[in-house]
Amino acid sequence: MIGDGMGPTYNTAYRSFKNNPSPYLEETAFDQHLVGMQQTYSWDSEESITDSAAAATSLSSGIKTYNGAIAVNMKKNEVKTVLEEAKDRGKRTGLVSTSQVNHATPASFGAHDKSRHNYNDIADDYIDEKVDGKHKVDVILGGGISYFERKDRNLAEEFQDAGYSYVNTREELVADTNKQILGLFAPVGLDKAIDRPQEQPSLEEMTDTAIDRLSTNKDGFFLMVEGSQIDWAGHDNDIVGAMSEMKDFEKAYERAIDFAEKDKQTLVITTADHSTGGLVMGVDGEYKWDPTPLRAAKRTPDFMAAEISDGKDVKEVLDQYIDLDLTAEEIESVKKAVETDDTTEIDNAIERIFDVRSGTGWTTGGHDGVDVNVYAYGPQADQFIGLNDNHEVGRKVMDILKNIRSAKP
Amino acid sequence: MIGDGMGPTYNTAYRSFKNNPSPYLEETAFDQHLVGMQQTYSWDSEESITDSAAAATSLSSGIKTYNGAIAVNMKKNEVKTVLEEAKDRGKRTGLVSTSQVNHATPASFGAHDKSRHNYNDIADDYIDEKVDGKHKVDVILGGGISYFERKDRNLAEEFQDAGYSYVNTREELVADTNKQILGLFAPVGLDKAIDRPQEQPSLEEMTDTAIDRLSTNKDGFFLMVEGSQIDWAGHDNDIVGAMSEMKDFEKAYERAIDFAEKDKQTLVITTADHSTGGLVMGVDGEYKWDPTPLRAAKRTPDFMAAEISDGKDVKEVLDQYIDLDLTAEEIESVKKAVETDDTTEIDNAIERIFDVRSGTGWTTGGHDGVDVNVYAYGPQADQFIGLNDNHEVGRKVMDILKNIRSAKP
Repeated sequence: MIGDGMGPTYNTAYRSFKNNPSPYLEETAFDQHLVGMQQTYSWDSEESITDSAAAATSLSSGIKTYNGAIAVNMKKNEVKTVLEEAKDRGKRTGLVSTSQVNHATPASFGAHDKSRHNYNDIADDYIDEKVDGKHKVDVILGGGISYFERKDRNLAEEFQDAGYSYVNTREELVADTNKQILGLFAPVGLDKAIDRPQEQPSLEEMTDTAIDRLSTNKDGFFLMVEGSQIDWAGHDNDIVGAMSEMKDFEKAYERAIDFAEKDKQTLVITTADHSTGGLVMGVDGEYKWDPTPLRAAKRTPDFMAAEISDGKDVKEVLDQYIDLDLTAEEIESVKKAVETDDTTEIDNAIERIFDVRSGTGWTTGGHDGVDVNVYAYGPQADQFIGLNDNHEVGRKVMDILKNIRSAKP
Repeated sequence: MIGDGMGPTYNTAYRSFKNNPSPYLEETAFDQHLVGMQQTYSWDSEESITDSAAAATSLSSGIKTYNGAIAVNMKKNEVKTVLEEAKDRGKRTGLVSTSQVNHATPASFGAHDKSRHNYNDIADDYIDEKVDGKHKVDVILGGGISYFERKDRNLAEEFQDAGYSYVNTREELVADTNKQILGLFAPVGLDKAIDRPQEQPSLEEMTDTAIDRLSTNKDGFFLMVEGSQIDWAGHDNDIVGAMSEMKDFEKAYERAIDFAEKDKQTLVITTADHSTGGLVMGVDGEYKWDPTPLRAAKRTPDFMAAEISDGKDVKEVLDQYIDLDLTAEEIESVKKAVETDDTTEIDNAIERIFDVRSGTGWTTGGHDGVDVNVYAYGPQADQFIGLNDNHEVGRKVMDILKNIRSAKP
């Protein structure tokens, strides 16, 4: 499980967001399985801070590579991924994300490309690339309809012709029982958890249904679940969205752990690919980070900014979606942003209300370099204790897969 | 061992600072002993982000308390520290820091006070408070002459009368062989490692000499070593100073591990009390953190700013202490700061050169709330695997001390 962009501060902040000390802070679902940390730097010649593609390739294939690489090495040669290794060994496989399913992280497990930006080629890989003549990903759930139902090629139809179910809503997903399924619930990424309409499943629901379909296989399964938009909220410097995405990811994590606790033969490795945004709990000399105002938000600032940009009244929108007595100054700051006619400025103004009230700081719209947390539960979880480089985490998962085979000749 | 202010980014950044990937980054001395992380929040009614006093009290005494508390609980009642427990059990004890030895962190192990600001009272505690009629700290090394040689009371003389050696220079420290020693090497804190004059010992030397004196005791010893000024560099948002202090702390850490490796009966727990400054590797959307310019500094920006403030020529000072071809713009930015007649502004202008060149971000002059790393080596190190609250770390150290006693009745 990969919390994209989930640097250590996201985990600490989410613990505070989730509960008030009474008098001790309660642990999150992740906390009890913390075993260490992971280095994330890539081998990019220009950028020492990794992107999601290089990091996910390290995790999927046990190698270091350049930013943008989708399961290819420095020479742009394809490298075998743990998903492919699992398929090769008779396991069922799945990819679940809240981004489009052909985004960098899932792509690095199920496709190969010299560039993460070749979204169509990556989507094509999911059906064209086979392992032992079989389609390599049995369960694909997330966003990305626009990359699969294209004018030049309709992959959704091709998957159906190959025996997959194809669903587009939560209702269809729940009703379906096919072992192989392509579920795409939005043109590109899903909405953020806090903004998500009824028709889109939660990450928890997608994880649950993926485990249901994969786990009936006697030889087991490999599943990668990504909380994709922790990162997107980080890029946007949106603490409301980040906390909402952490919650979505934690719920999915709980489902995976629930299964592993019953199954007793499943290893759950959870980490981030990198940290995003330079998120800090604490600004301007204040010794305080207060999650209370963040809990008062019913939608992301993005969602509110879009409504305001569409012509709705500033105060009405803020009143509707923020359960706080905003000051005249705060409301004014958003009205001032409206004058710029730039939705991003409106978004930034609303984000700033939450940043200031909570004491949240950011330093970048990109990624940052800090080591990220590693959580492990299940057989051989102890192999992940301590500090690992990201490629070592990938290599260890690969080795564990290979050793299972040799244990069952 | 406590790296004051050493949040996770300090550890990641220092790894990059220390070496270039060739092609993999080498581990720091800390890295191979990472076992988990630690929550740092305090029970302060106003401030959820801890100060050094509350955090050190949690580590020293196994309880949560308010900011400013020196080994006292929420009711301001004294609580027993692990140093006192160790003394009670016939162990020798030591406190080593690069701050004044009566600063919050060491104080929380060897003194009790309702406020960290009562520096004189804390220094008095070191000689007045006894365990079983004996002085409780055998080795005290760091800064703080001005608190010990006072007009109202000369603690340095009192310690000497009690049989302690009293030394003020590295030379005197090395020459002395007394088991009990008070070594104070600066009026308040020591200079930062990179600025430190010959007369002041390094943290490595102080640690080494403390271990030498304490380890000959058949019942063992308890020693707290603090890399105090990682925090001070963090408060100042000075990445040059922070990396130099990390190096000083790592060298001391290596000496402790060297001893523990030979001794085989010594547990070395290393962590931070909190993170400082909101340090981030990565700013303004750039995917790069470059330590190269930081290695070019021969003194801290503080040191350079003081010389400039004293009337030295800007360009000469920068040329002398920074081994880089500075741009006309960079030099101009410092000259402009000189016009303010404010040394802090000069310091900030020089710091900014390093921040911009390296891609370093900061969000606060205070502390931040992220969980911090925990390293453990030696017997029972596995007790610290995973996520602990800071008071649990303190409680575990206390329990280990108590169990040693019951093992040797």
